[in-house]
Amino acid sequence: MLEDKNPQLTPISTYGEFGLIKHLTENFSFKNTSTEISIGDDAAVINPENKKIVVSTDILAEGVHFNLGYVPLKHLGYKAVVVNISDIAAMNAIPTQILVSLAVSNRFPVEALEEIYAGIALACKHYKVDLVGGDTTSSNSGLVMSITAIGMEDSENIVKRSGAKPNDLLVVTGDLGGAYLGLQILEREHAVYLANPDMQPEMEGYDYILERQLKPEARTDIKKTLNELGVKPTSMIDISDGLSSEILHLSDQSKVGFRLYEEKIPMDSLTISTADELNLNPAMCAMNGGEDFELLFTIAPEDFEKIRNHPDFSIIGHAVELEHGNYLVARGSNELIALNAQGWDAFLKK
Amino acid sequence: MLEDKNPQLTPISTYGEFGLIKHLTENFSFKNTSTEISIGDDAAVINPENKKIVVSTDILAEGVHFNLGYVPLKHLGYKAVVVNISDIAAMNAIPTQILVSLAVSNRFPVEALEEIYAGIALACKHYKVDLVGGDTTSSNSGLVMSITAIGMEDSENIVKRSGAKPNDLLVVTGDLGGAYLGLQILEREHAVYLANPDMQPEMEGYDYILERQLKPEARTDIKKTLNELGVKPTSMIDISDGLSSEILHLSDQSKVGFRLYEEKIPMDSLTISTADELNLNPAMCAMNGGEDFELLFTIAPEDFEKIRNHPDFSIIGHAVELEHGNYLVARGSNELIALNAQGWDAFLKK
Repeated sequence: MLEDKNPQLTPISTYGEFGLIKHLTENFSFKNTSTEISIGDDAAVINPENKKIVVSTDILAEGVHFNLGYVPLKHLGYKAVVVNISDIAAMNAIPTQILVSLAVSNRFPVEALEEIYAGIALACKHYKVDLVGGDTTSSNSGLVMSITAIGMEDSENIVKRSGAKPNDLLVVTGDLGGAYLGLQILEREHAVYLANPDMQPEMEGYDYILERQLKPEARTDIKKTLNELGVKPTSMIDISDGLSSEILHLSDQSKVGFRLYEEKIPMDSLTISTADELNLNPAMCAMNGGEDFELLFTIAPEDFEKIRNHPDFSIIGHAVELEHGNYLVARGSNELIALNAQGWDAFLKK
Repeated sequence: MLEDKNPQLTPISTYGEFGLIKHLTENFSFKNTSTEISIGDDAAVINPENKKIVVSTDILAEGVHFNLGYVPLKHLGYKAVVVNISDIAAMNAIPTQILVSLAVSNRFPVEALEEIYAGIALACKHYKVDLVGGDTTSSNSGLVMSITAIGMEDSENIVKRSGAKPNDLLVVTGDLGGAYLGLQILEREHAVYLANPDMQPEMEGYDYILERQLKPEARTDIKKTLNELGVKPTSMIDISDGLSSEILHLSDQSKVGFRLYEEKIPMDSLTISTADELNLNPAMCAMNGGEDFELLFTIAPEDFEKIRNHPDFSIIGHAVELEHGNYLVARGSNELIALNAQGWDAFLKK
């Protein structure tokens, strides 16, 4: 991390609050016709273009959600945007604008904020969203980022958590558990480094899971894919806290139970081998690890043929009546194990 | 402040992240037909009802924007909402929804968060806005609140910072400087208390300025008043950082200069007497103090008769050509003093 020990670095107070925002955001361009007024007024003005507005916010705190000992600031900026855009994708809406607020201690030089904003700019470009507002302030310690994402969609296309019916199929995109195991590798190597700063970190061969942790992507592509397949999910959520707790959210909102088949949970071979190396159960990493930012959704049984064998999707279970509860069906034994919300919880982690 | 020393207080971890949000927000009701989906899904869904969406965000950090040594948590929650709603009012839009994110250290018990949310609920009720989303997480130290406010308005009614023309009149609502002097009294009495906890704080007689600091209000009423008078401002901003820097913002965005008449700046008699008591120049408190959350706007010269002598408004100056610059015209001497942005700046304050 960039610490303000170098006399060539620029203290934040050089700019002041207004100058700083201007400096950090002056190179952002706009991609959406819905962005009418952006940074520079009391508020941004957005033209809904006859659609509904979808809005979500997430707050990330240093030492809780990220460790600047091993997370590059540019990646942090990128990921903070992804986390929020993923929520918009989970409503089956199209992300269009973000607002970024930072509380940052004076130990950070301007160059550190420039790195964060470089990551934010990259994410804005990749996801075609406009940065339209925000606030930057000092804090007594550490870095806190709060991002609000705005998206748009027609009413009839918005997918909530609450539409699943018994017998609907439970589907997930991509593969799971990688982000969690990437974090374990980062924490292991960081601990080694702290114990002996001359040791070289052993990151080689872990590329995929490190990228899953450090530079995740939101599945904004899935909306188009499902549309082309003629499938509208009956309920949907993104996987930020772990498969298990997300299933329980769908259950809670849709008033159904779920059966999840352990053997169906999609995992990359590197995820499985790293779990083995660290003596962790790979399925548990997928169930409780979180931060994969894949989409979890249900579809009507009659849509089964449309998505079976599609490389983006895995059918991992199905909905049952609410009173039959939420259970993992264990590999081999078919034993039923109750699902619980051991997902990533910011208040329990510390 | 409520510190977690009392065994009857509830640690945040009792609830966990999801349970906590549910617990804190379960008693919020909704007032706006535009709120279609609220807390409980990946994102909120808002129906723009054929209007433009106006959105703004502010972040408040403990030790920078507030001192929990003397700011009651309920007031903090109320004020955090007001700060954001004031930005929506400054666009001449109607506030409709807010999202609230908190990063909070584990030293805060659930009861402390309940107090903050009681203040948020009071503000939501008073301003008829719906709490539709947010995020709550732990932090390594202190409390950081980030609020995003959403409002709506027809395009033709939205007022930007950029519409002022030379000869337009500069108008401000209410009176200025009170919030800053209230803060000085709170800080003085807090210092006395820290030096000798047996001393009674001397707050009596300072009610108005203490309320200006601790429980400010956003001028959402002004929109209706101006409408009734048949006046549409040509530019507008709210006074969060001080009259001086807000004038410079209007100047910057509208490409005009301003003349501000010191003798016209509206101040309450308690503000003036407290400034005298503390050996401060009252006008400087109004110019640079900030946090009054009054509205500053310009009107066309032909609207002069419509608002002169109206109790809500003071005409404090006028716009000139940009090249004539921004100056305070001093009381008595008519000396021109260049306006500068010595407004409240979170990065310089520490």
